[in-house]
Amino acid sequence: MESIKVFAPASVANVACGFDVLGFAVSAPGDEIILRKNSTGKLQILSIEGDDGKLPRDIEKNSATAVIKNILVHLGNSQGIDISLFKKMPLGSGLGSSAASSVAGAFAVNELLGRPLSVRELLPFAMEGERIACGTAHADNVAPSLLGGFILIRSYEPLDVIKLPSLKNLFAAVIHPQIEIKTKDARGILKKEITLRDAVRQWGNVGGFVAALYSADYGLLGRSMIDHIVEPTRSILLPGYDQVKESAMAAGALGCGISGSGPSLFALCRGQDIARKAGIGMAKVFEDLKIESEIYVSEINQKGPQILN
Amino acid sequence: MESIKVFAPASVANVACGFDVLGFAVSAPGDEIILRKNSTGKLQILSIEGDDGKLPRDIEKNSATAVIKNILVHLGNSQGIDISLFKKMPLGSGLGSSAASSVAGAFAVNELLGRPLSVRELLPFAMEGERIACGTAHADNVAPSLLGGFILIRSYEPLDVIKLPSLKNLFAAVIHPQIEIKTKDARGILKKEITLRDAVRQWGNVGGFVAALYSADYGLLGRSMIDHIVEPTRSILLPGYDQVKESAMAAGALGCGISGSGPSLFALCRGQDIARKAGIGMAKVFEDLKIESEIYVSEINQKGPQILN
Repeated sequence: MESIKVFAPASVANVACGFDVLGFAVSAPGDEIILRKNSTGKLQILSIEGDDGKLPRDIEKNSATAVIKNILVHLGNSQGIDISLFKKMPLGSGLGSSAASSVAGAFAVNELLGRPLSVRELLPFAMEGERIACGTAHADNVAPSLLGGFILIRSYEPLDVIKLPSLKNLFAAVIHPQIEIKTKDARGILKKEITLRDAVRQWGNVGGFVAALYSADYGLLGRSMIDHIVEPTRSILLPGYDQVKESAMAAGALGCGISGSGPSLFALCRGQDIARKAGIGMAKVFEDLKIESEIYVSEINQKGPQILN
Repeated sequence: MESIKVFAPASVANVACGFDVLGFAVSAPGDEIILRKNSTGKLQILSIEGDDGKLPRDIEKNSATAVIKNILVHLGNSQGIDISLFKKMPLGSGLGSSAASSVAGAFAVNELLGRPLSVRELLPFAMEGERIACGTAHADNVAPSLLGGFILIRSYEPLDVIKLPSLKNLFAAVIHPQIEIKTKDARGILKKEITLRDAVRQWGNVGGFVAALYSADYGLLGRSMIDHIVEPTRSILLPGYDQVKESAMAAGALGCGISGSGPSLFALCRGQDIARKAGIGMAKVFEDLKIESEIYVSEINQKGPQILN
């Protein structure tokens, strides 16, 4: 194989009740990357498009290319590669933009080299890409983007990542309003101490959410999508939060919450029609607030990254 | 039906990672109750055995009989009943002693009257028995004792109780050392505030534990049985805690923790042989500490209360 083109999906972390432990992948948006072997023995960034020039052009500082380099070093492989990255999703959106780039890079180089590593083995490399982009090697976007579906990060030390089942007819409506929230700020405002009472309610919901996925119980899934800890604080940064949630629920969504650290919001819905309605309702709120937004309606992406022709 | 004899099982609440939300029922020990219709139109306690005279003899203050009375009032039924309660398990053991009595009373009177209520409908009455005995209407012992198996209490307001699957070959070794810990004290020493970091680890484990039950993954079940919040504090009240845990794990247990608010401890094990070994190992620790103890090895009780001949 001389060259490869790969798509890696955006993802929704936290999923209402599961701060730092739950995430799922969507089918759109996502990033694309093209890798082509060269004979220079070097990694070269040919182009990065769709980022308005915001991403680093330095191989070691760009998460997609740094991940590729780390995998080559790990394998003791000195293959030269030309890299073209197409950001087909917004940066700083709370949809795992840097994770999608990291996963695209990791998956693509592994395929280009004839799959020396398993997909699971790529996870620590993609997490390292998150560290380069955000300062912390979070897995709650990277793991769903890489493995597809719903993911539980049970533990970081040691890393214990569990792929959960999904529900056949589950769709996500995701809305990205043109508001800037930095992940650092979104984490900075979180309280370091929480009440035991709220924590108990939260882990009851995490248990309920996981049970709902296994038992295909849409009602339980919706009832479990409550965040007693993080959203009450983070929603302060998000104009229209209450109304967006109300409009999604009025459209019949099972539940609605902030995607990752925001500003995007997501709703999980039974069926594509309800997801579309929820998306339209959510967009209407931002329209009324004179905030531009983009909507993505998609099934839960079970595949993770994909090779494109 | 003129009379009935019912067994209701003990239960293990919290189950390491699931403080206030997880519980399971065992097959032994448990309480027995005999109800016999009388023509006086009154409830009468004929006898209470096995409690060393510690339980209230007042119909309204004894959890088993108060539950029976509440159900009769709810049904507008003035049937007179003679009640004999046989405490076949230790009081104040952390094994849901009052819950077993409440469930025995609720289940037995419902059967005696020809089952006017569903088993699920008995739950709030049995919870009320817990309030009478302990001051709080906790469900994490009552629900497993009544419904059998593993139970998740997702929420109290509104009450949302989910029966989880069990693993076929899962056995519990439960040890009750002769140490007195009052539930009030065990709750009193808990911190009201916890760190977000510990809480995240805890809800990762709750998610992992639930996923393990559905996916029949013994390894994940064991890895998830870690309590970062409650046991580090409560274990201070329990002489031998570390050694008991070590001996259970050395015998091959999947995980080990405090049952409810203690002093009993439990170990979950793959297979009866390992559970027996774990029980013997745990008992040895208390023997060395000159503390008397009783061991119970049982499968996970899927049935809940049972009618005895």
